[in-house]
Amino acid sequence: MSQQPALPQTGAELRSAIRRGEFPWPTSGAAPGFVQANVVMLPRDVAFDFLVFCQRNPKPCPVIEVLEAGQVEARLTAPGSDLRTDVPRYCVYQAGVLVDQPATLQGWWRRDLVTFLLGCSFTFEHALVRNGVVMPHFGTGKNVSMFVTNIETVPSGPFHGPLVVTLRWIPRDKLIRAVQATTRFPAVHGAPVHIGNPSQIGIADLLKPDFGDAWPALSADDVPVFWACGVTPQAVARSSKPALMITHAPGHMFVTDLHDEEMAVL
Amino acid sequence: MSQQPALPQTGAELRSAIRRGEFPWPTSGAAPGFVQANVVMLPRDVAFDFLVFCQRNPKPCPVIEVLEAGQVEARLTAPGSDLRTDVPRYCVYQAGVLVDQPATLQGWWRRDLVTFLLGCSFTFEHALVRNGVVMPHFGTGKNVSMFVTNIETVPSGPFHGPLVVTLRWIPRDKLIRAVQATTRFPAVHGAPVHIGNPSQIGIADLLKPDFGDAWPALSADDVPVFWACGVTPQAVARSSKPALMITHAPGHMFVTDLHDEEMAVL
Repeated sequence: MSQQPALPQTGAELRSAIRRGEFPWPTSGAAPGFVQANVVMLPRDVAFDFLVFCQRNPKPCPVIEVLEAGQVEARLTAPGSDLRTDVPRYCVYQAGVLVDQPATLQGWWRRDLVTFLLGCSFTFEHALVRNGVVMPHFGTGKNVSMFVTNIETVPSGPFHGPLVVTLRWIPRDKLIRAVQATTRFPAVHGAPVHIGNPSQIGIADLLKPDFGDAWPALSADDVPVFWACGVTPQAVARSSKPALMITHAPGHMFVTDLHDEEMAVL
Repeated sequence: MSQQPALPQTGAELRSAIRRGEFPWPTSGAAPGFVQANVVMLPRDVAFDFLVFCQRNPKPCPVIEVLEAGQVEARLTAPGSDLRTDVPRYCVYQAGVLVDQPATLQGWWRRDLVTFLLGCSFTFEHALVRNGVVMPHFGTGKNVSMFVTNIETVPSGPFHGPLVVTLRWIPRDKLIRAVQATTRFPAVHGAPVHIGNPSQIGIADLLKPDFGDAWPALSADDVPVFWACGVTPQAVARSSKPALMITHAPGHMFVTDLHDEEMAVL
């Protein structure tokens, strides 16, 4: 009798499954408790400017690991990994234009590529759920709402552009706890950037997100709360039109061996 | 009747006094409440490796601002400043050897120098004092004790070496508060790296520091507590022998416009 293969439970198991081509899906909910990361690969000649951009904008661009030019293993956060194969799907941009969405980087990898792993909101969403906040997009295959704001990032070299935020509706009696619970995790976007007045940060209609899906409030007591979003560095990098930029495909993250709780500052 | 000039009270006032040559002294205690910074200047060709080193070792190397090659103004943390003149004294290293300790960088500045401002322990020492911990070195003109440990930093490119720590004696009934109070300030070395057993981190004799002055315990109830030290990046950079490296002279820091409390994560 054949059996369903067990779902990967650790970061290492999930990366192996992805590498074998057995997990071509979004990674939300897989290897629960392990830190997932946004991936940005850029040629060496703009890598310093991009790392300085991340240092200047730590909320949208929290750096978890930097792999030097030509390095394919995330030796510090995922020993044994290979960034060319261990992401379920990639996006390849040439001069800012999406030209391919391959399942591996065979044919695209170059030895001058520097890889940046940036924190992802999954870690702090789990912290919100543990504190009794409902995440209606969980388990639906849909994405959180994302908006381009009127808040400018601090530029570095060619990299500049507006901050992108995610929206989550928080019941008023959970507002304080939501700030506290996410403040613990600065390496995965940390505390919110705004509470309560979308127009003040340049958002006209909460039901018309710039990316992701629309989520109305669940109750009249829900307050819109906005966190810096991991899409910001990709949007910013895209706007600078580097000769080549490779990222993960939306939702198809790189999964590390770090545990969510290791990301907490206290 | 002539009057003593007033002591500079803000970061900007102190920088002006330094630039006019009127403040050639260590900056401890000057412009109280303003964040002071370690300074490391390196040629552009090793700047990326050094910034990655800082990302991998955030406790000894918390980056406050990066000034791109040729930039002399810390536009984000000290608008109007000039890093070539606004530090009371500099150290100039060529291939790892100290060759000059000038009061300005006239004659040394190069357009390919990238400047890193790194957090300094003064900010968290003030937090300890506000919590009732005595800092006996304050106001003595002497320095805290510093030790080279057996803890290796995570290398990056040519940069590698052991972690350097500072010692502070903390009364046992203040230990917990000392951890909490400094945890709030990750951008200035943050929580301690070790409590209580110096030999475990490779320190043989607490009265024989590798740098700074010796400070015995004030009471039998004092526990030795160790924090990551801002001397680490300089020691590490020195060991890598870059063609040129310029730093502040010990204790002669760059003073920003940031307030200590702005460095707190919560």
